[in-house]
Amino acid sequence: MPIKTNPGNLFEDFQVGQEIVHAVPRTVTVGDVSLYVGLTGSRFALHSSDAFAQAIGYGRAPVDDILVFHMVFGRTVADISLNAVANLGYAQCRFGAPVYPGDTLQARSTVIGLKENASGESGIVFVRSVGRNQRDEIVLDYVRWVMVRKGDRSRPAPAPHVPELDAVVTPADFYIPAGLQMARYDHALAGSPHCWEDYQRGERIDHADGMTLEESDHMTAARLYQNNAKVHFNQHAEAKARFGKRLIYGGHIISLARAASFNGLANAFRVLAINAGRHANPSFAGDTVYAWSEIVEVIELPGRADVGALRVRTIATKDHPCADFPGPGADGKYPPEAVLDLDYTVLVPRRPTVP
Amino acid sequence: MPIKTNPGNLFEDFQVGQEIVHAVPRTVTVGDVSLYVGLTGSRFALHSSDAFAQAIGYGRAPVDDILVFHMVFGRTVADISLNAVANLGYAQCRFGAPVYPGDTLQARSTVIGLKENASGESGIVFVRSVGRNQRDEIVLDYVRWVMVRKGDRSRPAPAPHVPELDAVVTPADFYIPAGLQMARYDHALAGSPHCWEDYQRGERIDHADGMTLEESDHMTAARLYQNNAKVHFNQHAEAKARFGKRLIYGGHIISLARAASFNGLANAFRVLAINAGRHANPSFAGDTVYAWSEIVEVIELPGRADVGALRVRTIATKDHPCADFPGPGADGKYPPEAVLDLDYTVLVPRRPTVP
Amino acid sequence: MPIKTNPGNLFEDFQVGQEIVHAVPRTVTVGDVSLYVGLTGSRFALHSSDAFAQAIGYGRAPVDDILVFHMVFGRTVADISLNAVANLGYAQCRFGAPVYPGDTLQARSTVIGLKENASGESGIVFVRSVGRNQRDEIVLDYVRWVMVRKGDRSRPAPAPHVPELDAVVTPADFYIPAGLQMARYDHALAGSPHCWEDYQRGERIDHADGMTLEESDHMTAARLYQNNAKVHFNQHAEAKARFGKRLIYGGHIISLARAASFNGLANAFRVLAINAGRHANPSFAGDTVYAWSEIVEVIELPGRADVGALRVRTIATKDHPCADFPGPGADGKYPPEAVLDLDYTVLVPRRPTVP
Repeated sequence: MPIKTNPGNLFEDFQVGQEIVHAVPRTVTVGDVSLYVGLTGSRFALHSSDAFAQAIGYGRAPVDDILVFHMVFGRTVADISLNAVANLGYAQCRFGAPVYPGDTLQARSTVIGLKENASGESGIVFVRSVGRNQRDEIVLDYVRWVMVRKGDRSRPAPAPHVPELDAVVTPADFYIPAGLQMARYDHALAGSPHCWEDYQRGERIDHADGMTLEESDHMTAARLYQNNAKVHFNQHAEAKARFGKRLIYGGHIISLARAASFNGLANAFRVLAINAGRHANPSFAGDTVYAWSEIVEVIELPGRADVGALRVRTIATKDHPCADFPGPGADGKYPPEAVLDLDYTVLVPRRPTVP
Repeated sequence: MPIKTNPGNLFEDFQVGQEIVHAVPRTVTVGDVSLYVGLTGSRFALHSSDAFAQAIGYGRAPVDDILVFHMVFGRTVADISLNAVANLGYAQCRFGAPVYPGDTLQARSTVIGLKENASGESGIVFVRSVGRNQRDEIVLDYVRWVMVRKGDRSRPAPAPHVPELDAVVTPADFYIPAGLQMARYDHALAGSPHCWEDYQRGERIDHADGMTLEESDHMTAARLYQNNAKVHFNQHAEAKARFGKRLIYGGHIISLARAASFNGLANAFRVLAINAGRHANPSFAGDTVYAWSEIVEVIELPGRADVGALRVRTIATKDHPCADFPGPGADGKYPPEAVLDLDYTVLVPRRPTVP
Repeated sequence: MPIKTNPGNLFEDFQVGQEIVHAVPRTVTVGDVSLYVGLTGSRFALHSSDAFAQAIGYGRAPVDDILVFHMVFGRTVADISLNAVANLGYAQCRFGAPVYPGDTLQARSTVIGLKENASGESGIVFVRSVGRNQRDEIVLDYVRWVMVRKGDRSRPAPAPHVPELDAVVTPADFYIPAGLQMARYDHALAGSPHCWEDYQRGERIDHADGMTLEESDHMTAARLYQNNAKVHFNQHAEAKARFGKRLIYGGHIISLARAASFNGLANAFRVLAINAGRHANPSFAGDTVYAWSEIVEVIELPGRADVGALRVRTIATKDHPCADFPGPGADGKYPPEAVLDLDYTVLVPRRPTVP
């Protein structure tokens, strides 16, 4: 009689090259979209209004890119990170076909690297995960690495294999939705007059507003994504663990930072890529999250007079307003208030030329 | 290079006659409707059941009127009340075309009055805001006034301009949905046998039930409406401010009072108008909200044997059950437990006549 | 002038044979489904994915059976249990036609038993409640009994009438959806390789994960179901009552136990029946809920090679992990950590035979 309880994979359960079909396909609905707005306060017009989306060439309001990320990520947790000690980083994350309410998402992952920690108590697992819709179109493709507990310390360490990862997703890999009609992009309705031409490399933007985290909110967010990593939900167990409290899903901080970035980047209507991401410090209920961004690169897109890209670095903090643009020092170390360092690329309308 | 962070308008940024197109149009969905029920417990049959709605002539269950109010109000916050000290009052609020899931709402406002406070630190801004659907039909039209911080105290005060506001929305301005089939109104399913004829001027109704406010609930409500007024969300900042804690969006109290009013007014199936509204005292997480109502006027509608109107005054309180009908004293001052004084008009079925 | 406030029924208001049409029909939507996932983290593939559901013969993803239970139950509260002291038990609960988003549910109840308590302060009311969809098909049919306050102790007790209830719902009463295509059931997507044949009578399964209860979560759940029983919502009143705090709707514990049971019973894709259920102890915000199950019976279904049934007993606990399978002792008494004892029957795919 097979044991039915699935304890989740431990470090020794992974092998480089292993392919994993993740369970629980998910039909994303307007219900998910509403709850996402309720949990984050996100205000990007494209995801908020069918009429706005249709005006610029979408069939209807597509699902927020970061919500798509969470939905695909959520599929992978039970296999990859149920026993994770920490979610360490992201790279090569590319958003693909827009997701619309009614689409069903599935995910598969490939183990692309393994590195046991010196302590022998855990190791780093690198996976490439791909989310697809019901037409088998890729909606998301990303690499993440996560520290996973080792169950049996006596087992020999696998040969270390650390994948080479690109520092940045390049324009050739951007998925730009077909049929965009940017002449019909209404800046007043989008909430900002600023076009791609208005941003400069090195420019810093304080997103100003703070959002206080509540246990109910971050747990509801993670549950919505069917992300069942134990550390988010169980105060009875976490009371005795490292932090004494439930750890907030790092992706929820990404959502709050992206929602806050509306103030300054309201026209960044699509996330093209996440080049790199790191949860600099953990967040807990009661923390207030703030964010600021730096424009890292202003990217002209070949053959496009209607849209351009901005590579943005957004730092989120806790209990520390961002008017002073807090971030890592010369030594690269993060101050204790930094909770997120996200390097990503967004699509922005260019200024219409007068014909 | 233009500054990208939008600090929101200060008192000196408004001028009488100014027209504002509010950003972020919003497609209202069944997801919003579900979350609204989850946050308020509202039980009006018309908004709960497509079958009930269709029986009496609607295409399907229309969106709760108060949710429509919040969605339109939410559009206006970033421009009008991001820096509000207090939301002072409402008047001349008229509900228009029913809103159905899938409709997209936009809002525009006109500044109709300004009055600087004697302190020179803030002033009152009066706006008329109009919400429209994707067919440009008016769904909501209301006046509110709000106290907004002045940024530069040295600037001269504008000439005071206080608009004359009607004390009550009159029947000529009621929007009564076409095609009502009240003979098919099922009182058992609606939850109350009481018809318009059963209510008397001066009658008082204790709505009995109390609802305790949680931080997560009121923040989720305000975020759902994309109401981003800072005072609701940021404990880190509010800890140092006037109350030491987050202030609850007054509209959430309206929702809870209306939901509670089901017990006694279950057949008030449509809000026709808000004649006047005032948040008598602020509410905070941990407060328990109760409500009671007085029938101010029993209004016969010209040419209608099927429906009548009731002008209702609902008082909501905190931590004070309403069996003793608490309200302002002879001096007009509100007791500290009063949090809402709402004067509104509802549509109610008349007793069918035997043919 | 009739009194408009409805105080809810007291024990003396019920009579055996009484029929009650419950108010507030409810159209269940994808918004409800999303919020249910957000509040419980439930991951059953059938309810999560239209594509998965269609593959095995459903029109689209049906609404989670336990959510259907709550929606029907919610209709009954205002009439049956608004003044309940305790929700004592369930029996003969049979799930009928699948519910799809867009279906409208109504409920009716019949009082089938009454028994006043020796104290004369309360009594037990037994009701059979039936939920139907807009085509008048039965979606749920169950008996529950509840302890209700008596208002006037001087009134004579009614003749005690305790209905005879079946200990178990038998296969002849199972509703198995027509047109199932189990050959297309994808175990990888469902999240478990285990078939009906893999389970044995007496087998115990620790569902492993714990979920901490928050006030906002359980209140939002109950409000979503329009369950307005006072004890769940009003801290101002409950502070002075028996427990000093809000009591969690027992059905929310059923939801959490069922969601946790995914780990070990992921292929239990349909709840056929609840044979018996008991809330062994109350739950409160801050408690962490765990669960384990015992396979009580492995039931072959006549004429079915594709699906079989499992009778399962799930015990949920608070602040007590279930690796030691806690439950009632030899004396039948529940330990203080036990909060739920649910005896139910689920439908599970059988192992495909090689043709």
